[in-house]
Amino acid sequence: MKIESVDFFYLSMPEVMDIGDGSQDSVLVRVRAGGLEGWGECEASPLPTIAAYVAPMSHSACKPVSHSVEGMPLNTVMDIRKISAVVHQNSFDLLQADHTLSGIDIALWDLLGKHWEEPIYQLLGYEKAYPKLPYASQLFGDTPEQTYEKAKASRISGYQATKFGWGPIGKGDAETDAMHFRAAREGLGAEHYLMIDIGTVWNEDASRARKRLQSLKEVDVYWLEEPFTNMALGPYKTLAETSPSVPLAAGEGCNNYVQAAAMMDYAALQYIQIDTGRIGGITAAKRVADEAKRKGITYVNHTFTSHLALSASLQPFAGLKNDRICEYPVEPKSLALEMTNEKILPDQSGHIVLPDKPGLGLTINTEAMKKYLVEAEIRVNRKTYYQTPEF
Amino acid sequence: MKIESVDFFYLSMPEVMDIGDGSQDSVLVRVRAGGLEGWGECEASPLPTIAAYVAPMSHSACKPVSHSVEGMPLNTVMDIRKISAVVHQNSFDLLQADHTLSGIDIALWDLLGKHWEEPIYQLLGYEKAYPKLPYASQLFGDTPEQTYEKAKASRISGYQATKFGWGPIGKGDAETDAMHFRAAREGLGAEHYLMIDIGTVWNEDASRARKRLQSLKEVDVYWLEEPFTNMALGPYKTLAETSPSVPLAAGEGCNNYVQAAAMMDYAALQYIQIDTGRIGGITAAKRVADEAKRKGITYVNHTFTSHLALSASLQPFAGLKNDRICEYPVEPKSLALEMTNEKILPDQSGHIVLPDKPGLGLTINTEAMKKYLVEAEIRVNRKTYYQTPEF
Repeated sequence: MKIESVDFFYLSMPEVMDIGDGSQDSVLVRVRAGGLEGWGECEASPLPTIAAYVAPMSHSACKPVSHSVEGMPLNTVMDIRKISAVVHQNSFDLLQADHTLSGIDIALWDLLGKHWEEPIYQLLGYEKAYPKLPYASQLFGDTPEQTYEKAKASRISGYQATKFGWGPIGKGDAETDAMHFRAAREGLGAEHYLMIDIGTVWNEDASRARKRLQSLKEVDVYWLEEPFTNMALGPYKTLAETSPSVPLAAGEGCNNYVQAAAMMDYAALQYIQIDTGRIGGITAAKRVADEAKRKGITYVNHTFTSHLALSASLQPFAGLKNDRICEYPVEPKSLALEMTNEKILPDQSGHIVLPDKPGLGLTINTEAMKKYLVEAEIRVNRKTYYQTPEF
Repeated sequence: MKIESVDFFYLSMPEVMDIGDGSQDSVLVRVRAGGLEGWGECEASPLPTIAAYVAPMSHSACKPVSHSVEGMPLNTVMDIRKISAVVHQNSFDLLQADHTLSGIDIALWDLLGKHWEEPIYQLLGYEKAYPKLPYASQLFGDTPEQTYEKAKASRISGYQATKFGWGPIGKGDAETDAMHFRAAREGLGAEHYLMIDIGTVWNEDASRARKRLQSLKEVDVYWLEEPFTNMALGPYKTLAETSPSVPLAAGEGCNNYVQAAAMMDYAALQYIQIDTGRIGGITAAKRVADEAKRKGITYVNHTFTSHLALSASLQPFAGLKNDRICEYPVEPKSLALEMTNEKILPDQSGHIVLPDKPGLGLTINTEAMKKYLVEAEIRVNRKTYYQTPEF
């Protein structure tokens, strides 16, 4: 097969709100080759991501991503790895390129899986996909009372693990945060896994994190996520060496393998969290999973959007039996919910398993997506470089 | 003052070639406030960079850069630092945002310098701008003979330092590379500073670098630049610990302060090279210069384009007397050459000094730029989000 076409679909909710909910819009990617279609999703700002695919070349290391993808052979896993490497060579001065590549790379794995009639995790060398325990990923309430209610609802829903993040947390005083932490623990009960996500609001300031360590310890937090800016290795290390000790998780902001490697080597993480839709796709994510295993760091997916993104994000560590916890989007917008005809749902024991079907194992509900499709156009010197394609 | 307008100009040579020459196109930024204009340049792919300014919001951490800039107060240095911080808070999931911010930040410093009638380096706290010794930054020839001729021409031109990079180097065998290295040294003479830039072609492969160490040592290379992918901390460290020892330089690919800090902490660099047009502008670059000084690492600018970019890139380390070497674009395209009415030219002793004038100290030749102006348009749901502005 050769890659015949790559199409980008900019999807959006009618109204996008100023909240930490990444499921309000989407960049869906369709790749066609050999009579088959593969689908992927970039976890990225749509316009710059599309522009990085179509932009005129600036110089030899700042080419549009299209340059390294269109017409390329696609028959084996090696072909996908080669495309990934060539994109990095040709576009390393085009910052947005990694986010653009992410959706393409996922679509290539989906397509190749359909071609060979194997799930992606098998193409990656895993014999089977082990069950994962999903944690409900939720925003903090505006008040501790709201956080308590959300926590209680999460427990009643049957989840055994819940992560609270963003919202008011980290922005006010330590005591208010502690009230939210305690409200979350009370609502969830003592047995529940509780993770806390700071969403980088402390930037590089380890002292603000230090003030919350005691209350985080008291609620037995499973991990503290992204207290600092991605790649701020110094503050992560400082915090890890501060008592009381709380396990640290981060990595969702990494847009390539070497950044994730740096975080694993020097940020004292116990959990490395990878968004397949940002790091360059499944190819780069699998490298991180391999390296994490060698280092004894637990791999966790970062997924806040659709079940397409969820399937893509689970494949790279599907075969790591001990890396059991996975992120699961609980409150995604209808756009994300309606994207796939099938869902990856928890079973009786509360676990999820990847579909045992070719590629990502899910089909796109293109009919449902039409109502979210944004008409966009990019023109340069009166020539159309991008126009919204048809489903 | 309040920021009244921010305009992006996409400039390009009529033909852009597939060579390692970043001066073939440009993103020029104009900011207006209080009856004054400030100018800056992003070292970036124009379309994604502009899209990152105008794109619709995706969620609270993926806002367009415009959201954090337009209408903001601009009276003091603190105001610029605040804008930089707010852009990072509001856009950290929009990968391209740092490249977009870079040109804006430079323009803000230029504008503030004009307002206070001080050169930027004085606003940064430096008493004076020390002379820098420019190295001629050139591409390797296709053959060792061509490299020799280019080296000889560089010496005859009066340069005392020359960097060769890109072209065929690192892609073939070690002996061919060694012939280029020797040709460069022969053409330059024994007293000349010679730097070699690999342009990241060895990706993460320290073994390919190791094979060249002996020949690099023999030609007395002043530094070996970017043997590996930006942020590939492991290979940099491995190479630094390999004999014979050659000083390492890198950092131009860093798009924010924390990445540069990681490179300074863990890549065993002797030289940190910062492109003000990529790292987020002068604000982020000055932080790197401060930290480099504390760590005993030499700061060097990365500049391959216009004299506007050159002035911006020299400001952050203008007052560091001992960090004497600076990059100087020798072969830029006419677009870059004609951008400013004034040039920063070497004096009799071969040194350059920043202009002792407000802001960047250079004026834009808008008339000359008109012939390079690219007409671009971005439309979303029939609404125009970007259209090429007028000079």
